Amino acid sequence: MFVINPLEKQLSLSFIDNVQQVIDIKTKPQGSLGLLEQLAAKVAKIQHSLTPTLNNPCVLIFAADHGVADEGVSLFPKAVTEQMVLNFLTGGAAINCFSRQHDLDLNIVNAGVCADFTINDASFINKPIAKGTNNFLKTEAMSEKQCQQALKQGANLVENKFKAGCNVIGFGEMGIANTTSAATIMASLLNLSGTICAGRGTGVDEQGVNFKAQVIDQAIELHQLKEATALHVLQKVGGFEIAMMVGAMLKAAELSMLVLVDGFICSTAALVASKVNSHFLDYTQFCHQSNEQAHQLLLQNLDVEPLLNLGLRLGEGSGVAVAYPLVVSAVNFFNEMASFADAGVSESEQ
Amino acid sequence: MFVINPLEKQLSLSFIDNVQQVIDIKTKPQGSLGLLEQLAAKVAKIQHSLTPTLNNPCVLIFAADHGVADEGVSLFPKAVTEQMVLNFLTGGAAINCFSRQHDLDLNIVNAGVCADFTINDASFINKPIAKGTNNFLKTEAMSEKQCQQALKQGANLVENKFKAGCNVIGFGEMGIANTTSAATIMASLLNLSGTICAGRGTGVDEQGVNFKAQVIDQAIELHQLKEATALHVLQKVGGFEIAMMVGAMLKAAELSMLVLVDGFICSTAALVASKVNSHFLDYTQFCHQSNEQAHQLLLQNLDVEPLLNLGLRLGEGSGVAVAYPLVVSAVNFFNEMASFADAGVSESEQ
Repeated sequence: MFVINPLEKQLSLSFIDNVQQVIDIKTKPQGSLGLLEQLAAKVAKIQHSLTPTLNNPCVLIFAADHGVADEGVSLFPKAVTEQMVLNFLTGGAAINCFSRQHDLDLNIVNAGVCADFTINDASFINKPIAKGTNNFLKTEAMSEKQCQQALKQGANLVENKFKAGCNVIGFGEMGIANTTSAATIMASLLNLSGTICAGRGTGVDEQGVNFKAQVIDQAIELHQLKEATALHVLQKVGGFEIAMMVGAMLKAAELSMLVLVDGFICSTAALVASKVNSHFLDYTQFCHQSNEQAHQLLLQNLDVEPLLNLGLRLGEGSGVAVAYPLVVSAVNFFNEMASFADAGVSESEQ
Repeated sequence: MFVINPLEKQLSLSFIDNVQQVIDIKTKPQGSLGLLEQLAAKVAKIQHSLTPTLNNPCVLIFAADHGVADEGVSLFPKAVTEQMVLNFLTGGAAINCFSRQHDLDLNIVNAGVCADFTINDASFINKPIAKGTNNFLKTEAMSEKQCQQALKQGANLVENKFKAGCNVIGFGEMGIANTTSAATIMASLLNLSGTICAGRGTGVDEQGVNFKAQVIDQAIELHQLKEATALHVLQKVGGFEIAMMVGAMLKAAELSMLVLVDGFICSTAALVASKVNSHFLDYTQFCHQSNEQAHQLLLQNLDVEPLLNLGLRLGEGSGVAVAYPLVVSAVNFFNEMASFADAGVSESEQ
């Protein structure tokens, strides 16, 4: 479905050496910029360039409602998904502050909110699959056709951004009850229990977390998800925003864009994408480790190191936006720092 | 010497409540911006304002040479301190890239480099105490008078920045062999062994680390530092750049500026400052946990949480500059985000 080049294998050994060389001759002890060095190398390799650039950076927030919210898994009423979409569009949410701070092109996608939007705003993309998924404790969250439609829709959105000159794209989401959907995906694909994957979400108490764990285990049982493929799991217990993100992420990697992943829910979309195409992770940077209990385990499982660990647990792409200047710092030092030779600085005596 | 107001005690309970209220009515689950919420509250309290601002942000890099470099504790020759000062002034170092990125007013202070600078550059502050400290394995690093002079010099520099409208100030340093000086300060003040406090610095191997540990233990023995006051330790084994930072940091806190602390060496200056005045830490934000072995332990001991953990180990204020946009994010969400009431978003049902 998506053709993604393996990052290292498509590059010549000499190009890979050159990238490392650019980093190592800078006026600093080798390796002393830590994760920023790895990120700079990744961007250079993705762009196959020794002068990488970040063009028209963009954040897409995918919003949708979840039938499983009817089980009472969230502290907030379902209506908050719609209300937050409106808050994004009037500029009052956290992601708006942080996007303004870093000049990120923020777009809100209605992937399937329980609402009728009559909004005329260039940053609003109204492409709902349906008004919310079904309650996956009763039936499948979405049909196979809806799942395919969501994947395609997400891919199309990214293609449009790419055509408009964007080469770095961040993902965020909004959807009351979507930590339950995400945790069920994680538990299914990593063969874990509900207890391990359920977390506090927007702030439920211990009893609430235990209840979420039961919901997860029941769903896995009902839909027989332990042996299912990633896309099957996505269809049975995912959300429209998660499915669109999967398609969008895979397309971005196919187009050699840098993919910036937000918190727990986005990371489960990335998990699905990595199961669909094993080269996907070559194109990603995980932006933060959230306070959601299972996120650390998920990141470890994906063998990725996030940029931030600030105890964020907000979603809506906030971690992507807050971390974005670190991506810029990585590219800037790669392009701008003087070499030992240029600056007349003595190298180490080793 | 420095009069620093305790942060919480000088504020009314109602003001402290108001600060938390501003944060909690924003359209997000309570606490979901993690460390950014704590930082926003700190800035509001320091400025005693519900509309805090970051004005004329500034980074001072203090550079000096260390007599103990003669023992061969660093991979790099002493000349690199001077060479890096010149690199800072021509804009080729990492801190230059990151300061440009975030519009930080970068100033380089010659606190005591082994060099004769004939530079006419507004960003260069030429106030050397002497051409490097003495080798503290032979004698005291500096005289009591020199130490006092360095503290005063640092305080004066900060006062000038304050008068020019700066209310947030970051500290960085450059000085070949200064991880050895810093580790000796840490070991002395926290009653730890050389082995626990010695690290790789710019990249020495295990043998080098072991040697540094011996140097530290010997210095502690020679100068009887385990029972000494913080300023006595600073004088006996510190560096001119560290001593100037201590004075500068304490003055910044006295003037109710937000103090941004870089990596290991800056953190040992902050440790000394906190021993001189126990309210100092109320005004600080530690910007990153460096890869230098003992830094994590030092931060734990100070009971502070850094913003970043990217494996940086460069110094020169690079961690301050890379983390600075996170400070801006904290202030921005505090000032700009809509409240639940403003945005018409339902609150949690708890």
